[in-house]
Amino acid sequence: MISETTLRVRYAETDAMGVVYYAHYLTYFEVGRVEFLRQNGLPMADVDRKLRMPVVEASVRYLRPARLDDLLRVRSWIGERKRASFLFRYEIRHAETSELIATGETRHACWHPETERMIAIPSWLEGLLTPEAPESPDEGRP
Amino acid sequence: MISETTLRVRYAETDAMGVVYYAHYLTYFEVGRVEFLRQNGLPMADVDRKLRMPVVEASVRYLRPARLDDLLRVRSWIGERKRASFLFRYEIRHAETSELIATGETRHACWHPETERMIAIPSWLEGLLTPEAPESPDEGRP
Amino acid sequence: MISETTLRVRYAETDAMGVVYYAHYLTYFEVGRVEFLRQNGLPMADVDRKLRMPVVEASVRYLRPARLDDLLRVRSWIGERKRASFLFRYEIRHAETSELIATGETRHACWHPETERMIAIPSWLEGLLTPEAPESPDEGRP
Amino acid sequence: MISETTLRVRYAETDAMGVVYYAHYLTYFEVGRVEFLRQNGLPMADVDRKLRMPVVEASVRYLRPARLDDLLRVRSWIGERKRASFLFRYEIRHAETSELIATGETRHACWHPETERMIAIPSWLEGLLTPEAPESPDEGRP
Repeated sequence: MISETTLRVRYAETDAMGVVYYAHYLTYFEVGRVEFLRQNGLPMADVDRKLRMPVVEASVRYLRPARLDDLLRVRSWIGERKRASFLFRYEIRHAETSELIATGETRHACWHPETERMIAIPSWLEGLLTPEAPESPDEGRP
Repeated sequence: MISETTLRVRYAETDAMGVVYYAHYLTYFEVGRVEFLRQNGLPMADVDRKLRMPVVEASVRYLRPARLDDLLRVRSWIGERKRASFLFRYEIRHAETSELIATGETRHACWHPETERMIAIPSWLEGLLTPEAPESPDEGRP
Repeated sequence: MISETTLRVRYAETDAMGVVYYAHYLTYFEVGRVEFLRQNGLPMADVDRKLRMPVVEASVRYLRPARLDDLLRVRSWIGERKRASFLFRYEIRHAETSELIATGETRHACWHPETERMIAIPSWLEGLLTPEAPESPDEGRP
Repeated sequence: MISETTLRVRYAETDAMGVVYYAHYLTYFEVGRVEFLRQNGLPMADVDRKLRMPVVEASVRYLRPARLDDLLRVRSWIGERKRASFLFRYEIRHAETSELIATGETRHACWHPETERMIAIPSWLEGLLTPEAPESPDEGRP
């Protein structure tokens, strides 16, 4: 399952070089991740009460700059699932030209808000975190 | 009592017009406000447990743009104290030239985290919130 | 003409008090303003080349907190037009319940990027900046 | 050469989980990088006119959460220098306890603002980008 969402680059997200500031791609990834969960029946407000999924690693590859008012498409999918952590992968493209802007991933652990401890991925969540076969679902795409 | 603190404009805070994005002045005001409280013996982490001071109104006047890597001086003081709310005033100047960049204010209410209700300003806080006589302590300054 | 747009509160926009950080409302206002201009045939990328509209004053009144993942509706309209400045007014409501979250305004000047000077509102822009009759188009609304 | 700078966590940088939002570590890295350049005689405003150093890759490992009002120490050094790119490494620790909060790196290319092309690292910059011998200068530190 690959989720898609679009967002428009805000003034607040550009920097003095006229392009999206590099940290905001992690925010765009989060927007993608939250939509992935919502489209799988898990609105974020619910998730937060049952389980926290802190990011333990994140990385971004910046391919082309995004600019003010660009409409971007964020695609998010599960890249890997281990016993106690899982990996989200993302790609960001211009919504109109499909040009690739950035790719990246975030690794998450599971943390129980009541016991305040790291836990294995709970069984109710496992089915949702099924890794996609290809590394990138867009391989071979123009 | 007027508190002073300096901060340096970050890339993340500039926008595509090459200047500090207008929303970040409210963040700079908050930096000034937190320093005011710290310099009065109230570190923010302590405040948060005893009392929340939600902003009910905020305003900014933008006089000159601040730019990447500028060193800014933020001055914060109490402008007014009522029974259940108080006003912080701020001014932001270039630390080196003293040129005035922005002024503004934030009005705060008092909210008790345990009872989850608005309350009057507690007596332990009152002494700290003594309004400065002049509207701006910098009047007549070059 | 009143423009409407919706946006969803992002994790990045919440703070340790569990609600939207107060500076981000100015970002939400900007999202509303950019949509107002787009819906009037002025995409931001075009505006920027012909005219800059720096904010000279901004204010916000915070009525109810917005929370993570809330869907918000931003309404934007022209509140006033003078020779060389104009006022945008905004209100932010919960998209589902219509509860009022925040109101505010921003005053803008006109600045010409080539001559690098403040100018009067150009005639091509005037028609677009027609003030709405009521202060708030929502007066009397539940 | 390892540069050090300190910064204090702002309300604006925390999220609804009560800790620093994960994207802001990239902003903290940038603060460290700008200080590294300044301490080497290259204030950012100068760099920008002669050379842009766009980030082509970034990654972060999150070890412990940082919280509101924490004083953090950011250390920055050069990890690698190739013909046309170089790597900054970073670590962020609590300034008081020295506990490790996060580590990461950013890879930069060189881009000439006048010709608008990628270039090899210019000779005037090379001396400054001398890699540190150890991967982390803090190995073996408590």
